[in-house]
Amino acid sequence: MRTSIATVSLSGSLTEKLTAAARAGFDGVEIFENDLLACPLTPEEIRARCADLGLTVDLYQPLRDVEAVPADVFARNLRRARHKFELMRRLGADTVLVCSSVDPCAVDDDALAAEQLADLADLARDSGVRVAYEALAWGRHVSTYDHAWRIVEAAGHPALGTCLDSFHILSRGSDPKGIEDIPGEKIFFLQLADAPLLAMDVLQWSRHHRCFPGQGGFDVAGLVRHVLRTGYDGPLSLEVFNDVLRQAEAGPTAVDARRSLLVLQEAVGAAEPPPAVVPTGFAFAELVTPDAAPLAGLLDALGFARTARHRGKPVDLWQQGEARILVNTAAAARRDGTRLAAVGLESPDPAGAARRAEAMLAPVLPRRRAPGDAPLDAVAAPDGTELFFCSTRPGGWRSDFEDVPHAPAAPSVRRVDHVALTQPWHHFDEAVLFHRGVLGLRAEDSVDLADPYGLLRSRAVSNADGGVRIALTVGAAPTDDTAHAQHVALATDDVVAAARRFRDAGGRLLPIPANYYDDLAARYEFADGELETYRELGILYDRDAHGVLRHCYTRTVGRVFFELLQRDGGHRGYGARNAPVRLAAQHAAGTP
Amino acid sequence: MRTSIATVSLSGSLTEKLTAAARAGFDGVEIFENDLLACPLTPEEIRARCADLGLTVDLYQPLRDVEAVPADVFARNLRRARHKFELMRRLGADTVLVCSSVDPCAVDDDALAAEQLADLADLARDSGVRVAYEALAWGRHVSTYDHAWRIVEAAGHPALGTCLDSFHILSRGSDPKGIEDIPGEKIFFLQLADAPLLAMDVLQWSRHHRCFPGQGGFDVAGLVRHVLRTGYDGPLSLEVFNDVLRQAEAGPTAVDARRSLLVLQEAVGAAEPPPAVVPTGFAFAELVTPDAAPLAGLLDALGFARTARHRGKPVDLWQQGEARILVNTAAAARRDGTRLAAVGLESPDPAGAARRAEAMLAPVLPRRRAPGDAPLDAVAAPDGTELFFCSTRPGGWRSDFEDVPHAPAAPSVRRVDHVALTQPWHHFDEAVLFHRGVLGLRAEDSVDLADPYGLLRSRAVSNADGGVRIALTVGAAPTDDTAHAQHVALATDDVVAAARRFRDAGGRLLPIPANYYDDLAARYEFADGELETYRELGILYDRDAHGVLRHCYTRTVGRVFFELLQRDGGHRGYGARNAPVRLAAQHAAGTP
Repeated sequence: MRTSIATVSLSGSLTEKLTAAARAGFDGVEIFENDLLACPLTPEEIRARCADLGLTVDLYQPLRDVEAVPADVFARNLRRARHKFELMRRLGADTVLVCSSVDPCAVDDDALAAEQLADLADLARDSGVRVAYEALAWGRHVSTYDHAWRIVEAAGHPALGTCLDSFHILSRGSDPKGIEDIPGEKIFFLQLADAPLLAMDVLQWSRHHRCFPGQGGFDVAGLVRHVLRTGYDGPLSLEVFNDVLRQAEAGPTAVDARRSLLVLQEAVGAAEPPPAVVPTGFAFAELVTPDAAPLAGLLDALGFARTARHRGKPVDLWQQGEARILVNTAAAARRDGTRLAAVGLESPDPAGAARRAEAMLAPVLPRRRAPGDAPLDAVAAPDGTELFFCSTRPGGWRSDFEDVPHAPAAPSVRRVDHVALTQPWHHFDEAVLFHRGVLGLRAEDSVDLADPYGLLRSRAVSNADGGVRIALTVGAAPTDDTAHAQHVALATDDVVAAARRFRDAGGRLLPIPANYYDDLAARYEFADGELETYRELGILYDRDAHGVLRHCYTRTVGRVFFELLQRDGGHRGYGARNAPVRLAAQHAAGTP
Repeated sequence: MRTSIATVSLSGSLTEKLTAAARAGFDGVEIFENDLLACPLTPEEIRARCADLGLTVDLYQPLRDVEAVPADVFARNLRRARHKFELMRRLGADTVLVCSSVDPCAVDDDALAAEQLADLADLARDSGVRVAYEALAWGRHVSTYDHAWRIVEAAGHPALGTCLDSFHILSRGSDPKGIEDIPGEKIFFLQLADAPLLAMDVLQWSRHHRCFPGQGGFDVAGLVRHVLRTGYDGPLSLEVFNDVLRQAEAGPTAVDARRSLLVLQEAVGAAEPPPAVVPTGFAFAELVTPDAAPLAGLLDALGFARTARHRGKPVDLWQQGEARILVNTAAAARRDGTRLAAVGLESPDPAGAARRAEAMLAPVLPRRRAPGDAPLDAVAAPDGTELFFCSTRPGGWRSDFEDVPHAPAAPSVRRVDHVALTQPWHHFDEAVLFHRGVLGLRAEDSVDLADPYGLLRSRAVSNADGGVRIALTVGAAPTDDTAHAQHVALATDDVVAAARRFRDAGGRLLPIPANYYDDLAARYEFADGELETYRELGILYDRDAHGVLRHCYTRTVGRVFFELLQRDGGHRGYGARNAPVRLAAQHAAGTP
């Protein structure tokens, strides 16, 4: 199917928007009227620019409040339409969108609406234009798709059809099944947008909070399935009004948009990309640092041993149990201080995972390997983190490392439980959909975390058995994407023993205020001495319906800290309830 | 009356919040539980810190979902309460807030609620604590203030009263008149918050969009009048949950909060600050610049003449009609490039205006004047703009300037119509209230303006006859406060002549795309040649219910540009409809 995007969904000048849409692989665009008015190019030049970029102009929407109005008003509307149809001829756009009227002088008269729309369609046909009539969710008299279709049907004009918009249909809770009663050739256009499930004024919801399909709470795929059953063969076109995307760079937004349609097309059976290969665990987490010593001290105290060194690069492997941390001191990677730069995802089919990622528009990273290195495919996540698809079996990435002598020790931790990554502010929704669409992870619920200096939002993505969990966090303001720390959470069967061992080895745990423990005492009953142990070590405590979570934190090195975490009874959370206390303690320690 | 603020309304650590509240002049605080839990100080130390700062701890709210629950659940709640009452004793807080339950296991049984609240009050009394029961707007069974009061009345316990919260009452549209039926001594606490009138889920509205009184759409003053008639003598306490304020600096937020209460207290007759002295016009706009030449060229082409020079400073006065522009090249003012640094407001009583400003917590600027200079009082607006209260009559500020010879010319413009100032992102609501409360201007409606790189919000403040209009604009992101330009709009009776004169004198007008004029042709009918004139000069056109606005723009120097503007028939707007085209044209010209 052809894909299209409304220019209002992207930021910048019209030419910037067209370039971004074409680069992301869209076939066409809807041109938003203000973008054209503000553009120094003539309509003919815009048409030529689109043609050069391989884009068709699929829709233009310069008309409002056209129908069901008194005769003198309608005469003025036709005058305006005549101007606009001439413009569309110059622009090479053959479909005009007409939204149901919100004009206070519009009357509740379907016959009049049909008659005037037919008159408009007559005029349009003379200019080679088709009229697509759409019900706005807040239209004065026409606000549902079936009502708009009844008027189109009554008009019975070959140049008049309907336009369906998933937001207008699903925001009202209309049943999209009735779409199948509309002949496909009378559906002139299909606009797609998702939105978070907010209980708010529908106009404000529509104008400020739309998002790309798969990023909100609507069943957009279900709606598209109904549309496809009618035989509709026009484009899938994204029309997303979103305050955040208005500020974001057009290029990444266009890729995000195109990826959302790929996921949608797969879901409705309209495309067959390589199937998702869900990762089964963490092969490693890779930290880059200008100075290995502070990390080495921290890892040693946590119970890791330096077990191997890369054969060709300054990269050490630290390991205990199935937890593996790479410490990379290569010059090229050291510019930004100590940070979590890459994650190795254990994959049952690394090559297949890479094919999926590439098909889903993940930027494929050049392989930086020497002859003899194991093949290792990597893509960049939206936050720049490198994701490696790998296998820890013999012959895999591990064979690039040479064992170094180390003292054996009883491990404190078993494996990496999760990694937490701060996301770019303007592309948080993209990050969640990326991890779903590219990696096949599922998204958990979004939670707000109160930081002393702003509200953070966090959403985890995970596989079915919890072997891979990634907490995606976004700061309170656009400038915050590098201000907050990343962390690696290490799963242990005995957090008290692991914390003691860390402390006894000279590690410094994040101190937690005594007031927190007084509150725990008020909230729950504990065995004798239990709370005192938590208090002594700075262990935080939470319960959910499944079980108990106990966790504590190291101090921060650069942007990175570690968490020791014990899940009992299948506790599924990440300690969101404790996050305000932890964040305040980190600010107090000077390492937010 | 005493004033108080909830720590959740301010950002930072608890000690930062307490300091900010005390510096702004609050008498007390409500301590939010998470702030205490995250604080390394003991309750006794917090109490001592508050005492040192002159703050009382007026309220604590550690209890949720207390009442109307099964006996075993209530027993656990009492256990928790016992812990918390002991904490309150250590903290020196004597009032505990209990919100109506949202617990799914709570039952709809007022008698049980009253009985359990009385039991809680018994326990509280033993610890010297009073219980204030409040109806949450989204409470499960109790969601209105009169319902909460009926339960309190039925309980008939001396240590049990009610807490009123303006948000919970006004967000539900309850009539606050019924408050007068509650005996004042049974109103244990009054929490105040305003909010913009949003149609959205009330819990989300409450948690993210509250604002200080006078900054939203509620009649908070009306509610307070009803409360005062009951004889209530507790504090006016601000409890504002707001995502933007969570990120803002606590110091300015606390001042903003305190000012909102001063305006409220004046409105309800509980305080008598010096009366507002509404400015009647612009005495001058002052630009600072490191290089006077580009501005001099621009002003000359606009028809200004350099008429005078300050006797003691490198400041030139440019004038035509009643429009006066100061160009300041003093070294100290030149750091930030060319910008609009100060506005002289023509005042019927400059000293009275200054007294009002100081009483309303406007930062009074030190007088930087030489012996012999006219007295000139100035305060800083929230965006840093210096506001001078002055009189252009003989003996006023003008006498500090010495006339310089200049060629007489017929003026093109009459006066300054408005100035537009970009506001700090985190304090836009403060800016609007500042101009209302300090200067006595009234706020017009807020409008959204689509910039190619994000949505701007703009709100004008003005006096009754339009002699003073200030457009306050806020960028799309926190980082944008200096990215967007400021401008001075000059009123003319003939914008076409003024634009021609400017152009003929070598001035460069902002070019407007031809597509804009094609749209005007579709939208309105014009006299022969009229539209061609506008197109030639880049004049934008708008109509409202009152009349016609024609306006055009100069190129930008530093952060400053000028607008030539002709209002006919009493047009009241600022060209919001044309703003997207103007903003895009400015971006295209490289001078957003």
